[in-house]
Amino acid sequence: MILDSIREVNDIHQVAPALYPQLAEEIRQFLIAKVSEKGGHLASNLGVVELTMALHIAFDLTKDKLIFDVGHQCYTHKLLTGRREGFDSLRDLGGMSGFPKQAESPCDLFDTGHSSTSISMGLGLVSARDLRGEDHAVISVIGDGSLTGGQAYEALNNASQLKTNFIIVLNDNNMSISSNIGGMSRALQDLRTAPQYNKLKKTVQNALDRIPEVGNSLAHAISRIKSGIKQLVIPGMLFEDMDLTYLGPIDGHNTAQIVDALRDARRVNRAVVVHVVTEKGRGYAPAEKDPEKFHGIGPFDVKTGAEKCAHAPSYTDYISAGLCELAAKDPRVIAVTAAMPTGTGLARFRRLYPDRYRDVGIAEQHAVSYAAGLAAGGLKPYVCIYSTFLQRAYDQIVHDVCLQKAGVTLLIDRAGIVGQDGETHQGMLDASFLRTIPGLTILSPRDGRELLQMLQYSLSFDGPLAIRYPKGSAPKELTPQFEPIRFGKAEVLHRGSGIALLADGSMVAAAMSVAGILQESEIDATIVNLRFLKPLDEELLCELSATHRLAAALEENNRSGALGSALADLTQQRGLPWQILNTQPEDAFIPQGTVSEVRRRLGLDPRSIAERIKEKLSL
Amino acid sequence: MILDSIREVNDIHQVAPALYPQLAEEIRQFLIAKVSEKGGHLASNLGVVELTMALHIAFDLTKDKLIFDVGHQCYTHKLLTGRREGFDSLRDLGGMSGFPKQAESPCDLFDTGHSSTSISMGLGLVSARDLRGEDHAVISVIGDGSLTGGQAYEALNNASQLKTNFIIVLNDNNMSISSNIGGMSRALQDLRTAPQYNKLKKTVQNALDRIPEVGNSLAHAISRIKSGIKQLVIPGMLFEDMDLTYLGPIDGHNTAQIVDALRDARRVNRAVVVHVVTEKGRGYAPAEKDPEKFHGIGPFDVKTGAEKCAHAPSYTDYISAGLCELAAKDPRVIAVTAAMPTGTGLARFRRLYPDRYRDVGIAEQHAVSYAAGLAAGGLKPYVCIYSTFLQRAYDQIVHDVCLQKAGVTLLIDRAGIVGQDGETHQGMLDASFLRTIPGLTILSPRDGRELLQMLQYSLSFDGPLAIRYPKGSAPKELTPQFEPIRFGKAEVLHRGSGIALLADGSMVAAAMSVAGILQESEIDATIVNLRFLKPLDEELLCELSATHRLAAALEENNRSGALGSALADLTQQRGLPWQILNTQPEDAFIPQGTVSEVRRRLGLDPRSIAERIKEKLSL
Repeated sequence: MILDSIREVNDIHQVAPALYPQLAEEIRQFLIAKVSEKGGHLASNLGVVELTMALHIAFDLTKDKLIFDVGHQCYTHKLLTGRREGFDSLRDLGGMSGFPKQAESPCDLFDTGHSSTSISMGLGLVSARDLRGEDHAVISVIGDGSLTGGQAYEALNNASQLKTNFIIVLNDNNMSISSNIGGMSRALQDLRTAPQYNKLKKTVQNALDRIPEVGNSLAHAISRIKSGIKQLVIPGMLFEDMDLTYLGPIDGHNTAQIVDALRDARRVNRAVVVHVVTEKGRGYAPAEKDPEKFHGIGPFDVKTGAEKCAHAPSYTDYISAGLCELAAKDPRVIAVTAAMPTGTGLARFRRLYPDRYRDVGIAEQHAVSYAAGLAAGGLKPYVCIYSTFLQRAYDQIVHDVCLQKAGVTLLIDRAGIVGQDGETHQGMLDASFLRTIPGLTILSPRDGRELLQMLQYSLSFDGPLAIRYPKGSAPKELTPQFEPIRFGKAEVLHRGSGIALLADGSMVAAAMSVAGILQESEIDATIVNLRFLKPLDEELLCELSATHRLAAALEENNRSGALGSALADLTQQRGLPWQILNTQPEDAFIPQGTVSEVRRRLGLDPRSIAERIKEKLSL
Repeated sequence: MILDSIREVNDIHQVAPALYPQLAEEIRQFLIAKVSEKGGHLASNLGVVELTMALHIAFDLTKDKLIFDVGHQCYTHKLLTGRREGFDSLRDLGGMSGFPKQAESPCDLFDTGHSSTSISMGLGLVSARDLRGEDHAVISVIGDGSLTGGQAYEALNNASQLKTNFIIVLNDNNMSISSNIGGMSRALQDLRTAPQYNKLKKTVQNALDRIPEVGNSLAHAISRIKSGIKQLVIPGMLFEDMDLTYLGPIDGHNTAQIVDALRDARRVNRAVVVHVVTEKGRGYAPAEKDPEKFHGIGPFDVKTGAEKCAHAPSYTDYISAGLCELAAKDPRVIAVTAAMPTGTGLARFRRLYPDRYRDVGIAEQHAVSYAAGLAAGGLKPYVCIYSTFLQRAYDQIVHDVCLQKAGVTLLIDRAGIVGQDGETHQGMLDASFLRTIPGLTILSPRDGRELLQMLQYSLSFDGPLAIRYPKGSAPKELTPQFEPIRFGKAEVLHRGSGIALLADGSMVAAAMSVAGILQESEIDATIVNLRFLKPLDEELLCELSATHRLAAALEENNRSGALGSALADLTQQRGLPWQILNTQPEDAFIPQGTVSEVRRRLGLDPRSIAERIKEKLSL
């Protein structure tokens, strides 16, 4: 095995070019084997094996700086930087991350997980390098999907002004163009390296000039077309001295060819886009066939590609069914996703209501403002989005939705602990940042049934609404009792005395377990489902405070600005006689692990909470 | 006066084309007169007089939908929709807004003030129109500056897929191209309307085809150049069926010509970019000469263009001086702005340290991630930004700065009440949304001196830091006493008893006034400058709680998630024996008015706060 000879960064420099294909094959088999055991991102990693090898061959990553956009495609990079053993603990609590991590290797420059930031960060490194008079390469690797994020464009717009080297590798795995790959030749690549490209332009100009009269006007016409195209695409750029160099397209599964292109690129004194065409899932038939399924996947059977554990119905499944039901009932219903149709449960909606389905690409800002426009036009938009990615649309929720009082419903998936994707994917901030926004009503369902009820409620709700629910399986119905949803009203699930458990969303189930544990100590706790995080049911809370000396706040979200602090503020403001025990975790970035492991670690499991309550009561 | 004949929307349809120039002149004189009295946005409004007239002539705004990006350029629109009298109360408390407002007119579709959202919202209206089977025009008017915002690109990327009419007017007032205006002719415009443009392309192809051998390869070469340019600019778009139509450039000061272009544009069944070239400040010499000064301006002398009231030194002025001092001392210091060099006080820095100054355009997301890259590269970046615009970089502060523990300092201007720009410009959320972010240290200075000290402190501070300060004049030094800044430590300005005033930033001065008022009632209040909003000085607070039965929280920020709720949460968590009186305003969008008027209205003036305290004490 050649792979055995690669123990640390730059070991790949010793591998003979003739052996590149064999090494790539070994890496692929390694990744398929490991991901089939541990789960993880497979399709994208299989797509960039040769590209990553080429980056490691063309550069010296002990000094050159490499940034992967998003970072989920860094597995080969980890293999080539001495982290082969890490794959045995991939995505485990305390194990190796599936994303770049500074703590794991000096070859990981940033801890990333969100899209479209790599060009910005790369440009920062370039500016720093130049100001400090250093000399090393800076390479940002970005997928074509990530390029639909506006921030990437903001950064490209700035990159165009560079007068020094900066390499942007466009990892292009757009399925729609894969059929064109055949037509992309080395000749075309040569043609587009800077000197030849310029020569070509001159040749065209000269050839046209040689045609009298017509020639000149044609040359003009061509220049007008060029301007037209530029203006067509990004008018603002017409006015700038656009100095990006383009190299490509390059066969992304030919290591030696990519190495050549990268070395060419390094010699250019400006920002260079190296366009590499790759195939998602390359080398593993099931992933080639269904790359969306193998984007992020749990453990699977290598032979068949079948995922090992069929999962119980999730909140996402309820959304999938519930939204289609709404759409059947009301022609105003329209669903918007930012490149996450499967993850957010819209695949079925897309199939049944293609006219009322919109995938805007990785463009969360646009998704939210677009929805505000839809609402202003008389429709009923549902924006389906992950909690962590909604962070990118904070301003749009403020400015375009809530200030307008627009009837937009945000369906926020993966709110709370997400588990094995770790820090960058946790949904532990949305309850806090959404609460800061005036005029936004925030709901969390306790089970699948309540989520469906909330969807029904949203249909006639007139104004900005957010519904947050966690990743993973949803209890169908925690208890048969069900209080109909009324604006701002909480649901009392059990009336006890002395101690009240004030919970929302996923923590209602925990509260019921806590109550069970407390019962063993003959404590009869009241259980409240605070389905409205905002506005709070102040009337009920004031009433309960008279008969309960302690109220525990339970919410799957970081502490600052969330449920517990709102309850504390209310308690102080009204001088309520109870004490609030805030069980929410302290503000921190929360590492990977299974959801239940992480909950335990954060003290969000029923036993830990019950202990804290008993401790408090004994004071 | 023709203007007298325009009483409501569509009255302009009665004006004869020959009179357009005269009407434009009357509007200009009206705007200059009014803005010189009331202050406001002048340069941009003078630039779009003819464009706005043309929009009103070409369309029927009782049914067609017009959106101005940002919206500060809507003055002529207001004049043409029956709001002439409103200019007497422009930007006053309870008066007419300087931005679009749904409450003022059905011709204002959204309340806006932030950049780069109009194409998204327009697309939403288009989708709604088409799904509902309606037939009206949708027009988004966006400036070339706003097009540097990534969201505009996200939206353009989606607009390209449209198969129905959507008009995007590019209001291009880029000074750098104004010299080219002369060369732009009606002929060129005609050339670029769809049929002619396509004809031209065919002509080129045919002409080239007629040249044997060379011809064919040239045509190929041209198509390659075209692809190259497209790919160069936004590679992702190469792969899409890009169906934007381009019309222009059009002389933005020729009403009839713009009307023709808009009518042409309305006939195209796809998204059309109408490129209109305008001159900022047009028709008023001082504004033409210095459009940056006349972007937003206070009352001024029409003859000279001089601003009437010279203002006292502002926090921005301290930043201006302080940052230059840091840069002189430390070569790592680099300043980043998102198109606000003057507003954020960087004009001097730009002059003195051009190598270490970066204006990235209206691109707040990029600005913040770029700074993270600068920090990773060993520099000490300062991102100077308005509170309200920082909302757009929330995710980048979380993901690219704080998760990396990057040594980026955010200098947040206009934190708190901004006054006359109203709802969309208030900085009343940043204390809340910044507090949600793990690992971010947040400071607020009480006066100019403290701001300078905080800048010094930031230089050796290792990690993510935010310093928030308000718009307007800064007291040089509230009191001669000054406790050196130590991490997480508050400053006790006066030790009294019974009641503690816990204030930060601008509210420290208010707290001192409150203390003065309370003294009249023989209440000796303790005054604390909580210069660290995060982390709070828990040690001091616990200590004070033992000797104070009431603590008032004073902060210029909305209530949810800000200082008062943090103090309440701490109080409940630790079981501190005092009560927290949270004087922060309830979550709301706060309308325009002078800063002192708005403060009084929100109960943030010293007298109101003192009253609330006395009331609480008497309970």
